Amino acid sequence: MPEPTVGGPLIERNETARVEAFSDGVLAIVITLLVLELHVPRQLTSEAALREALAHEWQSYLAFLTSFATIGIMWVNHHRLFTLIGKIDHWLLMLNLLLLLFICIVPFPTALVAEYLGHDGARLAALALNGVFTCTAIVFNILWRYAASNRRLIANGVSDEVIRSQTKQYRLGPFIYFASFLLAFVSPIASVALNLALAVFFALPLHTAD
Amino acid sequence: MPEPTVGGPLIERNETARVEAFSDGVLAIVITLLVLELHVPRQLTSEAALREALAHEWQSYLAFLTSFATIGIMWVNHHRLFTLIGKIDHWLLMLNLLLLLFICIVPFPTALVAEYLGHDGARLAALALNGVFTCTAIVFNILWRYAASNRRLIANGVSDEVIRSQTKQYRLGPFIYFASFLLAFVSPIASVALNLALAVFFALPLHTAD
Amino acid sequence: MPEPTVGGPLIERNETARVEAFSDGVLAIVITLLVLELHVPRQLTSEAALREALAHEWQSYLAFLTSFATIGIMWVNHHRLFTLIGKIDHWLLMLNLLLLLFICIVPFPTALVAEYLGHDGARLAALALNGVFTCTAIVFNILWRYAASNRRLIANGVSDEVIRSQTKQYRLGPFIYFASFLLAFVSPIASVALNLALAVFFALPLHTAD
Amino acid sequence: MPEPTVGGPLIERNETARVEAFSDGVLAIVITLLVLELHVPRQLTSEAALREALAHEWQSYLAFLTSFATIGIMWVNHHRLFTLIGKIDHWLLMLNLLLLLFICIVPFPTALVAEYLGHDGARLAALALNGVFTCTAIVFNILWRYAASNRRLIANGVSDEVIRSQTKQYRLGPFIYFASFLLAFVSPIASVALNLALAVFFALPLHTAD
Repeated sequence: MPEPTVGGPLIERNETARVEAFSDGVLAIVITLLVLELHVPRQLTSEAALREALAHEWQSYLAFLTSFATIGIMWVNHHRLFTLIGKIDHWLLMLNLLLLLFICIVPFPTALVAEYLGHDGARLAALALNGVFTCTAIVFNILWRYAASNRRLIANGVSDEVIRSQTKQYRLGPFIYFASFLLAFVSPIASVALNLALAVFFALPLHTAD
Repeated sequence: MPEPTVGGPLIERNETARVEAFSDGVLAIVITLLVLELHVPRQLTSEAALREALAHEWQSYLAFLTSFATIGIMWVNHHRLFTLIGKIDHWLLMLNLLLLLFICIVPFPTALVAEYLGHDGARLAALALNGVFTCTAIVFNILWRYAASNRRLIANGVSDEVIRSQTKQYRLGPFIYFASFLLAFVSPIASVALNLALAVFFALPLHTAD
Repeated sequence: MPEPTVGGPLIERNETARVEAFSDGVLAIVITLLVLELHVPRQLTSEAALREALAHEWQSYLAFLTSFATIGIMWVNHHRLFTLIGKIDHWLLMLNLLLLLFICIVPFPTALVAEYLGHDGARLAALALNGVFTCTAIVFNILWRYAASNRRLIANGVSDEVIRSQTKQYRLGPFIYFASFLLAFVSPIASVALNLALAVFFALPLHTAD
Repeated sequence: MPEPTVGGPLIERNETARVEAFSDGVLAIVITLLVLELHVPRQLTSEAALREALAHEWQSYLAFLTSFATIGIMWVNHHRLFTLIGKIDHWLLMLNLLLLLFICIVPFPTALVAEYLGHDGARLAALALNGVFTCTAIVFNILWRYAASNRRLIANGVSDEVIRSQTKQYRLGPFIYFASFLLAFVSPIASVALNLALAVFFALPLHTAD
């Protein structure tokens, strides 16, 4: 592969479309692959046995729901971000790839949680999941600050107030997920449940926007 | 992750494009992943054994066809919906994510039906599949009513008559799928066959549009 | 799910964009899922054993290449089709879903060929692959004829001569694949090799366009 | 399938959009499927055992990161290429399919590296991965040269200097990856590490663009 050339905003405005399309593709695939971790119990010979086997998979359902909701909120955030970002450059592409890297990893710790929650490896699994979420939140911040600093890549017509408000909101993410990471040392289940609660909280406009 | 801000239609009209693209991505992946549940019988040593093994997988083929057809009709509905919806807001994004959640789950009960139809767990499998379809039909209604109420997010140029007609058509969905859910208690196979028949019925314009 | 309304070209011209996007998504996923059938030999303890195990998988490589090339050509055809089709209606959506159904199935007979070519079930596997290809070619014809008849859904500016030429070219597809289907009774390997050769032939402009 | 007609740039400029969309889809899926090779250790009964099992999978993490980063850079290159290419013709579609073929194969040698790095089959695995990367770099060159020769498919407004600079940069790729291929004979781990380093190097603008 050749080296991409580097420089200022070398790609015009409507080129953000392809970055969004690629990111949408990755997010859509990751969110859909999560279902592959819901395993069908094979060759059980009674309905009672099947019912019990399915009920025993509650960790899988919790892990699936948590990661689905979190990635869903990530998509909403990514979507909103690119209504504010109007130009792209080499570093934005790279930061976006780094963001997608952490998002692509999510199914792995999700599967760990599905397998080990309620068992002895639960702490490690919850730490892994929250570690990935924390990294994602950090990269979201870096990407946004890179784009917003001196309005480097901000679309025309976006007010400084909107930028400040966005920066303020993003600042909390890494701390919240790091707190959930720490909680995993005390209670892995509480930590994963907090992840799900956070996604639902971000989905519900209980909080004011200012 | 930071909190998305909340409010009225904060995203302009052409922003529905990215919601549609993300939804298309998810629907395309779900409909394609279904084939992974068609298992190749391994290491059989005669053509007769392979033929018999493939014939024994009729539940897998029925489950695959049923879910493919149903998700296909869902895509057509989603597509049509977004020819009527011209604006998006925070709640529409959330309801659309909820819709995608139920659609993403479809491969799991499909695999259950493929494994247990004709065996002792068939009732549970058919209930699971119809339960997911019923939830999908309900969320389709909620999403449409939210968008259509007071023409909140309706595109300009869509007549009130078209809105009323759409509302009337959507109203039936949850009841039909719930009836199929109840049928699963009597006959799991008839319930799954009804799902397939419904998808084919919706595909064929046997019904008038008024 | 509610019933989609039925009628003439109810969706305007730029609406073909979403049909193309959904079809592109499905085609891109199917073509990429094929690689999942290339199995890594596990836990071999010498390089010689690994080399031999990989060499033994030649059926998998042939099946992968054949289906990749064939789906690639299908994409080119689908792409070209929608440069000629400028409007969509209910039946076109349905025929396109039927086309995608057969394309989505391709990984299953591909895996059959990968498992059984060179063994006793080879004939059945090659028949399955060619059966799916033949059905795809037939649906391509039905879809095109539906769109082209009386220029029902043809884009403005497409000459009648282009339509006639396209119809003439499509006519051959089902017969060629059915011939390959019949060849599978005589020699499964020759039949699969013919599939690959056909895809390469369609890719190379050895034939004149008239 | 019918034969596509052949000729000059038969598809107008905005038709590059669908080629990009299809390629984006394939690239997004391939980059996301890589995570499926990160296997969750099953049914371990102590956290210590799980920690050790996860630590033992370092080859999987290295393989995942290497292929993710390399495909990410491929996407950036593909993206940049299509800001320069403004028209498509039959051969460009075919060369693009050939490019996607090699990119689609990447998960297979990646899984080989994940399974055999540090064991006896490591050399073969690293050769396979570098072989695929080398082929990809070669096809990138062929595709670009085909498009750039006599400005055959170059968009209006792209200067000859930009074309020359792009050609010069692409020329190195195949040699670099072939050098890494040769390195695999000496040290498979060094070869894979070099692949990762190359992707990071291409991501960082340490090199000047002239």
